[in-house]
Amino acid sequence: MPAIPQHAVSGVFSPVVTPFKADLSPDPDRFLAHCRWLLGTGVGLAAFGTNSEANSLSVAERRALLEHLVENGLDSARMMPGTGCCSIPDTVELTAHAVKAGAAGVLMLPPFYYKGVSDDGLFRFYAEVIERVGDARLRIYLYHIPPVAQVPISLDLIERLLKAYPGTLAGIKDSSGDWSNTEAMLDRFPGFGVFAGSDEFLLATLRGGGAGCISATANINGPAIVRLFDGWQDPDADRLQAECTAFRKAVAKLPMIPALKATIAHCLNDDAWLAVRPPLVALDSGQRAELATILVEHGFAMPGIDVRQ
Amino acid sequence: MPAIPQHAVSGVFSPVVTPFKADLSPDPDRFLAHCRWLLGTGVGLAAFGTNSEANSLSVAERRALLEHLVENGLDSARMMPGTGCCSIPDTVELTAHAVKAGAAGVLMLPPFYYKGVSDDGLFRFYAEVIERVGDARLRIYLYHIPPVAQVPISLDLIERLLKAYPGTLAGIKDSSGDWSNTEAMLDRFPGFGVFAGSDEFLLATLRGGGAGCISATANINGPAIVRLFDGWQDPDADRLQAECTAFRKAVAKLPMIPALKATIAHCLNDDAWLAVRPPLVALDSGQRAELATILVEHGFAMPGIDVRQ
Repeated sequence: MPAIPQHAVSGVFSPVVTPFKADLSPDPDRFLAHCRWLLGTGVGLAAFGTNSEANSLSVAERRALLEHLVENGLDSARMMPGTGCCSIPDTVELTAHAVKAGAAGVLMLPPFYYKGVSDDGLFRFYAEVIERVGDARLRIYLYHIPPVAQVPISLDLIERLLKAYPGTLAGIKDSSGDWSNTEAMLDRFPGFGVFAGSDEFLLATLRGGGAGCISATANINGPAIVRLFDGWQDPDADRLQAECTAFRKAVAKLPMIPALKATIAHCLNDDAWLAVRPPLVALDSGQRAELATILVEHGFAMPGIDVRQ
Repeated sequence: MPAIPQHAVSGVFSPVVTPFKADLSPDPDRFLAHCRWLLGTGVGLAAFGTNSEANSLSVAERRALLEHLVENGLDSARMMPGTGCCSIPDTVELTAHAVKAGAAGVLMLPPFYYKGVSDDGLFRFYAEVIERVGDARLRIYLYHIPPVAQVPISLDLIERLLKAYPGTLAGIKDSSGDWSNTEAMLDRFPGFGVFAGSDEFLLATLRGGGAGCISATANINGPAIVRLFDGWQDPDADRLQAECTAFRKAVAKLPMIPALKATIAHCLNDDAWLAVRPPLVALDSGQRAELATILVEHGFAMPGIDVRQ
């Protein structure tokens, strides 16, 4: 996938869903197969995001899954694993590990247990992590997802971090769902790698000078979203965007993470993909029937590659 | 401290503040000294709670600190460490570790990353943890702290867990700040070990048949709170409660965790106690002066034991 000129990292990334075995341990082989399918369709790997149930995994489980991808030859230059935890030591461990694995960048949640923390405290958290990782290759993408983390990343915090660590602070994923916030980032920080947190805002983000999107539905609808990314300056871009958005809105009628997994299970006829870790709950049979109808209505299929291979 | 008859574990517990060295690593010696001082004043050790910055620690750091207390002979029967994390494996590891260390109980946050999760998902989370720990000695105290975790524990969830695991589900800490919720728990689950999340509600909790309190200010004001616990049926109980409440409200004008640490630093003339981990921020000099004034106004001192010994 061609990089948007001003961005070292750009394109369509998927917060890769994490498959589990019957005993709820991570399933490295299904994970590898899904990542391979994603890369094959032009989708980069933002493993260990919100839709990956990353915070339902231990640090050791996250390390082992990433190593499994690298050992099997997947392109780490197309990886942006999530590494932000509540604690500095966990965040440092995962971040240093990802950098050593060759990841193009890391996606870093703010520490999300305490609420109402100051920008000063968040700045110190990120600064401690950067200093402790101490690696010039580190590229941080901040992860702004106030509906879930409940700890927002303000424009002033971005500015302060950019001033202190201009080579390291590479961009942000904006999952606020608030386009005016994404627009404000694009306006205030030209060249900053702004990724929309949903493919719904991909075209607007690219038109505003952003880098792409990191989107839940890229787990299943990657080919269509990549078509939009590649053709964003083409005359039919708005139609492609409308199709992606319509599909996303349809799937979002169901709980997103279980629905993504159920879609993969459905397309591969592989019910092992249904499993989620508590506190999430898999779709029930009624929801799965509703999902199947949505997929038919949108003429949906996961094309080409059987992810079980 | 005498147990309230219907409760195996009762009394005043402190979410023990965690001291850090200059490099922000945990300071096991100051931690041990503070825990020893707390136990000496009759306060139990709810280490690794919200006020302990537990979620700013790694699993390994929490294990090492608990082991340091046990190895130094502190009474594990007066310990209720926090063990609830976002992930099942981390929660299982910390819980099994605490049970093996002989802790009287564990205080268990719900998984707090995803918001709006169902009672069914939370039930499955706790059930998985209980089954995986698989130890008849396990006593779980749920931790209801919606202002911070943003994931509440409903009365229906408690009922369902009590039915499924009657020997294991021992009680709850209610840090909702909503007395009507504590009252509803006391009414609906007689004999359940309900701890107020603030000493402000200690007397009301005991009058309602509860087990005690787990309170931030027990880190510094333990002697007064224990006096109230011991004398809750005495004629001057309401006066003792009013004094505890007034002190707590005064301290709570400042950010609580840094203020607790600054109080200890002030009383011991030991500025090492000021350190907090980001995203928290230590009190500035103006706030420390304000705190000193509050301490004088309330005639406050940490009596008797020098925690540096």
